[in-house]
Amino acid sequence: MKPSIPKGTRDFSPTEVANRTYIINTIKTAFETFGFQPIETPSFEKSSTLMGKYGEEGDRLIFKILNSGNFFYEKDSIDLPESYEKLKFNSLDDLESKEKIELNRFTNRISGKALRYDLTVPFARYVVQHQNEITFPFKRYQVQPVWRADRPQKGRFREFYQCDADVVGSKSLWQEVEFIQLYDTVFTQLGLAETTIKINNRKILSGIAEVIGAQDKLIDFTVALDKLDKIGQEKVETEMLSKGITSAAIQKVQPLFSFDGNNQENLDALAKMLTTSEEGTKGVEELRFVINSISELGLQSASLEVDVTLARGLNYYTGAIFEVSAPKGVKMGSIGGGGRYDDLTGIFGMKDVSGVGISFGLDRIYLVLEELGLFKTVALPKPKVMFVNFGENEALYCMKAISQLRVKGIKSELFPDAAKMKKQMNYANKREIEFVVIVGSQEIENDEFTLKNMVSGEQSKCSLLELIQTLL
Amino acid sequence: MKPSIPKGTRDFSPTEVANRTYIINTIKTAFETFGFQPIETPSFEKSSTLMGKYGEEGDRLIFKILNSGNFFYEKDSIDLPESYEKLKFNSLDDLESKEKIELNRFTNRISGKALRYDLTVPFARYVVQHQNEITFPFKRYQVQPVWRADRPQKGRFREFYQCDADVVGSKSLWQEVEFIQLYDTVFTQLGLAETTIKINNRKILSGIAEVIGAQDKLIDFTVALDKLDKIGQEKVETEMLSKGITSAAIQKVQPLFSFDGNNQENLDALAKMLTTSEEGTKGVEELRFVINSISELGLQSASLEVDVTLARGLNYYTGAIFEVSAPKGVKMGSIGGGGRYDDLTGIFGMKDVSGVGISFGLDRIYLVLEELGLFKTVALPKPKVMFVNFGENEALYCMKAISQLRVKGIKSELFPDAAKMKKQMNYANKREIEFVVIVGSQEIENDEFTLKNMVSGEQSKCSLLELIQTLL
Repeated sequence: MKPSIPKGTRDFSPTEVANRTYIINTIKTAFETFGFQPIETPSFEKSSTLMGKYGEEGDRLIFKILNSGNFFYEKDSIDLPESYEKLKFNSLDDLESKEKIELNRFTNRISGKALRYDLTVPFARYVVQHQNEITFPFKRYQVQPVWRADRPQKGRFREFYQCDADVVGSKSLWQEVEFIQLYDTVFTQLGLAETTIKINNRKILSGIAEVIGAQDKLIDFTVALDKLDKIGQEKVETEMLSKGITSAAIQKVQPLFSFDGNNQENLDALAKMLTTSEEGTKGVEELRFVINSISELGLQSASLEVDVTLARGLNYYTGAIFEVSAPKGVKMGSIGGGGRYDDLTGIFGMKDVSGVGISFGLDRIYLVLEELGLFKTVALPKPKVMFVNFGENEALYCMKAISQLRVKGIKSELFPDAAKMKKQMNYANKREIEFVVIVGSQEIENDEFTLKNMVSGEQSKCSLLELIQTLL
Repeated sequence: MKPSIPKGTRDFSPTEVANRTYIINTIKTAFETFGFQPIETPSFEKSSTLMGKYGEEGDRLIFKILNSGNFFYEKDSIDLPESYEKLKFNSLDDLESKEKIELNRFTNRISGKALRYDLTVPFARYVVQHQNEITFPFKRYQVQPVWRADRPQKGRFREFYQCDADVVGSKSLWQEVEFIQLYDTVFTQLGLAETTIKINNRKILSGIAEVIGAQDKLIDFTVALDKLDKIGQEKVETEMLSKGITSAAIQKVQPLFSFDGNNQENLDALAKMLTTSEEGTKGVEELRFVINSISELGLQSASLEVDVTLARGLNYYTGAIFEVSAPKGVKMGSIGGGGRYDDLTGIFGMKDVSGVGISFGLDRIYLVLEELGLFKTVALPKPKVMFVNFGENEALYCMKAISQLRVKGIKSELFPDAAKMKKQMNYANKREIEFVVIVGSQEIENDEFTLKNMVSGEQSKCSLLELIQTLL
């Protein structure tokens, strides 16, 4: 039986690694050009660091690590859930909340660590833990895998990379401006023209909720509004109604369902609608600053679009929120997102540290570039030249040359076995190696090499120096 | 209460990431120069892929991931271990083997995935799973973290990186030669002169066991012999006796305890000692080929040393075995190791695929380079220039220039807030930023910039073009 890997995970072939590395390096280079510094955090954190930070659904999707050794053993022994017999015979969805609580308590007894769910909470933990070593404002980037026990589907995996850049320790809106430029820079360099960077502001959403008199239902409101693109206006309204938002309230926000003028017009309309809300007005002002600054500075290939339906699921955002859509015509969810959070480190006891950040979705960007055929220029990790192996003497002669080539940084290898010529040439062909060197007794005698260009088929004799010059 | 991370794991600061990246890039570049291609495998594998591959101790050290959702629930329900009451009150070491088996069985019921323990077994799994897409001989490298629930100590962590290169699909000894050159290349480039690459051959060890008539005790013999450096001859002999190796047998291998001539002399002595063993003689011949080839080809800074006490714990080695010691004077275990295994993919049902590979211990190499002060030349990820922020107008003027600089690849940033000059300069100083640009109303009027060199203290006015030229 062939071995296999857990669902939602992937092996990456050499070509895939090369393509992924190309994307990651493009993003990292841009991060550093914008003044960000890299950090890394452990793959697993204490459960107490992660649990309760992503909502009930998030908690469920966190991979927990079983304590090592005899996990049943504890100083004061371990108690099975009272409802153990029920747990045995019912799936999670069929459990009552008391039973779920018991299950969680037992889970915490046998598992004290969990795999990272995103890079944001570990970053907040890092900032609090290392606050005395950090110079604020702290601009950090982080490119690492995260894990979620989600149902796998196209563009959604159980192990995937996040590429995050955040600044903490300043409320300056110039950072929002910079993050938009950063998105524009990366996607332009990847050849992904015509991406749309959508921007909104949580204060505007709060303002809207305030104006319609449903402040306490802001989360329900935004979660429903977020689905407008996917399920359409009617179903969004049905969901809002089902959450207790009144029909009258929904009527007041009708203009939001059909915004389609330019950014300035949208901002003007919002400003008017939110006059009575202090917070909403603040949100419009913030958005206006960002939009105007970007107008002044220009973008290379992306467009910036105010989108009042943009809400994003995460509750910790408090100011700007971003989301990037792939170029039109490519079916793919957002390929990036982020926003400002005024109190992320608060969950770890460090108050009043505002932050703002964005994330690039590596795996989705990969799928988009692949679909658009944009990996053509990526150099594959293969040798420039292969030396044919005719036996011990010839191989030693070749190895001496190969050592010289490698010192010059020329990727080269000897075919390991003195196999049939055809087999060796087949290998070179399959790996698409550009040059092959052939050395027999005659070449050794004359201290030379026969160099064959596998693309043109040309073949010629040369000295070691000429060989190096050709291959460099 | 300050948050913290699980024991044996680490956060990496920007400086540490930069240093680690420097080591990793050096290794990856060498791998590719030698013709290796990168692959990546998932962080967790199915438990069945990993369990039973590393011995009982290894199984214990593998981190298991709890099944998501209600892990108690299964179609046919889950049974608690019969000895549950004993498990509750006894640590692993106090359990009887029947109880351990029950614990393992229960573990397998609630956990179907486990974190990667090394890169070798996942590589074997990869080769078998993707055998039809692979061109053999397959030269792959892999640089990824692995996890072990080991007791943390200096140079030993619960999450650490392995950097592995392997070839499968050829028995050619030129590969052993190349791996020695590869070690030499990497350590020379890292400035780590005078490393010692120890080499031995499992066939020689088998031959020795054969000659002394203790073939069935080869593992016990090699495990004991491996400790010679650490615990001395007397204790090794005691251990061998305790494992049932006879005193007469130990007498026959006395010369092994005091080998100290040069490689050729050692090989000659071994050849003589092993004349009667076919396998041992084969091992000496293999070793001689490698030693002689390296003599012909030369090494840049490392030395190669036959070490008959080198056994390495892992049982899958069948030919050459390698281990690299840090330069003398640095207290550190081996910083690299590897060897040939004739049937690694056999565990997944693919027979007769010989492989050979080596590993670099990133974390230990880091500690050695740090101790020897060899990170001095590593460029830290910090901006080349910071623009002081005097307010909205000045900032916009600066942002226009910064956009130009970034297009040229110059790492630059604006201080986000219009804070006091002193605070902004302090930030630049703390981050050791080389240049600061100051723009007030006068500079804007004259379309120029004041550039200050923070090292020399020099200050001068310049145009945007001059600014770019200075900073490029």
